[in-house]
Order: sequence, then C-alpha cells, then structure tokens
Amino acid sequence: MELDVIIAPTLYGEDELRDRLCAVVDVLRATSTITTALVSGASAVHPCLDIEEAKGGAAKMGDGQALLGGEERGKFIPGFDLGNSPLEYLSRETVEGKVIFFYTSNGTGAIRRTYEACGRPVYIVALNNISSVASAMVSAASAGKAEGIAVLCSGRYGKPSTEDLLCAGMVIDRVAVGLRDNGIITQMVDGASIAAGFAAANEGHSFEVLSSSVHGRYLKTIGYSDDLEYTSRLDIYDAVPVFDGQRIVLSS
Amino acid sequence: MELDVIIAPTLYGEDELRDRLCAVVDVLRATSTITTALVSGASAVHPCLDIEEAKGGAAKMGDGQALLGGEERGKFIPGFDLGNSPLEYLSRETVEGKVIFFYTSNGTGAIRRTYEACGRPVYIVALNNISSVASAMVSAASAGKAEGIAVLCSGRYGKPSTEDLLCAGMVIDRVAVGLRDNGIITQMVDGASIAAGFAAANEGHSFEVLSSSVHGRYLKTIGYSDDLEYTSRLDIYDAVPVFDGQRIVLSS
Repeated sequence: MELDVIIAPTLYGEDELRDRLCAVVDVLRATSTITTALVSGASAVHPCLDIEEAKGGAAKMGDGQALLGGEERGKFIPGFDLGNSPLEYLSRETVEGKVIFFYTSNGTGAIRRTYEACGRPVYIVALNNISSVASAMVSAASAGKAEGIAVLCSGRYGKPSTEDLLCAGMVIDRVAVGLRDNGIITQMVDGASIAAGFAAANEGHSFEVLSSSVHGRYLKTIGYSDDLEYTSRLDIYDAVPVFDGQRIVLSS
Repeated sequence: MELDVIIAPTLYGEDELRDRLCAVVDVLRATSTITTALVSGASAVHPCLDIEEAKGGAAKMGDGQALLGGEERGKFIPGFDLGNSPLEYLSRETVEGKVIFFYTSNGTGAIRRTYEACGRPVYIVALNNISSVASAMVSAASAGKAEGIAVLCSGRYGKPSTEDLLCAGMVIDRVAVGLRDNGIITQMVDGASIAAGFAAANEGHSFEVLSSSVHGRYLKTIGYSDDLEYTSRLDIYDAVPVFDGQRIVLSS
C-alpha cells in the first residue's frame, strides 16, 4: 500500500487522492482546536470555506445551539463567539452540546478540499491525538477500505510548515509500523519519506519545532504563546475526529 | 538574512524571490549532468524550456559546435546527441569546447523560471558540488549582494523529491554556518528548516536516499542504476556553475 504525505495543500494532482484514506493536519491551530472542542463535548464542528458560510450556517440553527469560531490571518473575527485558540475550547461549559461553525485561514479549507478530492470521510489529526488517528487509519486500511493512505499538511497560505510536517511524519510512521504489523506491505513515496525523516530528526522536540516555525513565531507576537505549549503535547487525547462531508464528529 | 528552501517548484509567491540569491537543485539528474559537462570542458550549457527551443538553438550554431542533450520523462529524445545521464558527459573528447543545448523534464525549466523570478544569476548545484556552491553563495551574500537566499528544488513533475530536498538541506546548512562565521545573523523559514532537518536525518546516506526515492527507483527500472551511485557522491567537484539568463558557465 502506498503511503504519501502532501507537504503543502496544492501539491496533489487531479484524482490523485481519489478513494485514498486521508487525514488533514493543521497543528497551529485548526485541527488541534477541532479535536479539543469535540473532546470538550461539542456535538459537531462544521469546517467552513469562508466567514459568510459560517455565519449562514449558525443563523439557521435554533437559539443558543450554535457557536461561531475561528480566525482570519490568526486574529479574532468580529461577530464570532470564539477564536482559534484551542484553550478557548477547553471549557465544557462553553462548548458542550453546541454545533460549532468554524472558519480558519488554512485548515478548514484544506479539510473541505481533501474531502472533495478523496470522496470519502477524512480524519482530523493534530499532535494531541496522533496515535489514536494512526490506529484508526491502520484498522480501516487493514479492513481493505483503502487503495492508499495520504496525510495532508494544511501549511501556511499555500506553503509548507514545519509543525504540520512534523505531525504528518509521526502519523505516517505510526501507520507504516501498524500496517507492517498486520502483514501489509507498504511503500512510502517521497512526500512521506520527507515527513518521516523530518519527524525522526526532531523526535522529542515538538515544542521547539512549533516555537521556531514561522507561524509559531507569529502566534507568539500576537499573544498566543500558551497555544504552542498545548498544541505540542503528544497524544493527550484518545479521540478520532472524522469529517463526513458535512460535519466533523468523534468516531465511536 | 532569511534563508529559505523552496521544496517544490511551484511553492513561491509572486515577487517572493526578487533580488534573492538563488540556487537550483535537480540531483536526478539535470544539475548533476550540467556540472559534469562543464567540468569536462563544455564551453556552456543552455537550459531550454522545450525540445524545439533546444533544436533551434543548436541549428543556429556552426557545424560541430553544438550538442543536443537531455531527456523527456527520463528517456532519450530522438535526434538528440546525448541523453541526461551525467556519465555520458564525463568524456572530455565528447563535450570539450561544445555548447550544449539542454532540455530535461524538470530541471531546465526550473532554472529558467528561477532566473525570471529572482532577476539575477542563478547557481546550479548538485550533491557533486554542494560545498563549492555554498561557499560561493556565502561570499556573495557576505559582500552584501543579496536580501536573502533561497535554494529551489526542481522536484518531479511539480512534486517534492527526497534527493533534491537532501541536497538543498545540505546547501542551506553550509550557507547558514558560513554566514554565521562571517558574523551575519540568519533565520531559516520553514522550508529551510524542513530541508536542513531532513538532511541531518540522512547524513552519510545519500546513496540510500537516491536509491529509495520515487525517481531513483524509476531510473533503476530504465537502466540507469550507475547514475545513482555517481550523483550521490558529495563534493567530487570544486565547480560553481552559474546561469546568467542566457547560458550556464563555470564561475571563475
């Protein structure tokens, strides 16, 4: 089975992802925040392509059922209830039972486009939940549910980011080991080899990678240093968020 | 000074490379072959955008002065004198004094587009000549000739390749050390950090990286195993090929 990592969101050809088992990464911060919101009891997260779509979706819900969350270029969106810091979504009181309409500059679009490209449910992964998502992908692939596996990095405005590559490399490495243990022969193509190599070179240094990345440095300048500490923690959640084309919920 | 590695040839924005000191990498095989041809005494290499441009350029030269070289999708081009194996360009008898009109699927276009994007001479680098090109870039940058430095990976049909990332990572690491030794403060952006990390993870394993890459595996199937051995050798040449917008010659 072919294993790939798409290092930047534009780097796949037409039909290349069709029927593949795909996961999307946006460590800073969309996929970390989505995972946190669902673990805190949000009933679903709708990844939106723009602010208007998010507002329109929330407006159709009954009073008090929806929350608007996200950011534009890292900053709070006027009229939204919450930003894109995962720490805002830790409070069960705030998010429990709520449907969150969520828009961010890079991650939510990457999730939507990946679903269109592969035509099947998409896994949502961050450093906070790498092992549980990798296990779920191994189980699905071992059950014959995929022609190949791809992990997509959301990156930053079309360019690669170190934090997403680090996470993607850790995921694809765990997937490769899991499939091998199940007797499935795998082959990494170059994107996957690059991600796995980068992850190996930075093992045990997630926080340093996030702190020195372009986006990590930017987040520090706008007051989000604590987010780097939180999003760099490996496997704090046993949670597998899945996007079904409409909304993201935790896989049971 | 900002140091970047462009991991795939499409991953830079408009004007992003303007006035930067740039190098282009295509280890398998264009930049390895260009370097070899010039070391073997070719007077110049013209990187062409297509087969017709190469044929047109050669036709304008006097009898016996030009050679047509290159490949399309890894294979020999009918009517050409030479392919894209660097081993074909080792013979001084074949190439000395000749002007080579050269077209390859990925590398020659990347060289031309990089020149257009930065608007200044472009360095040509392969594993065979990394240290000499890195030194030349350090000297030029230390003399105040650049706003920033970028190494561009030609990749494979728009996608990243491990062999180019390995070489780019080694170049950018040597450049960073050299500039630091000259008292110049540098900062790697994410592409450069990814390349440097990948190179660090694969130190001493160039041949293994080339052999296991998608393009390396393809070249083995079409009979070019020896090229992998040759192109994986570090610093066998003290040679700095530079493209001036017209042709590539060795910098004196």
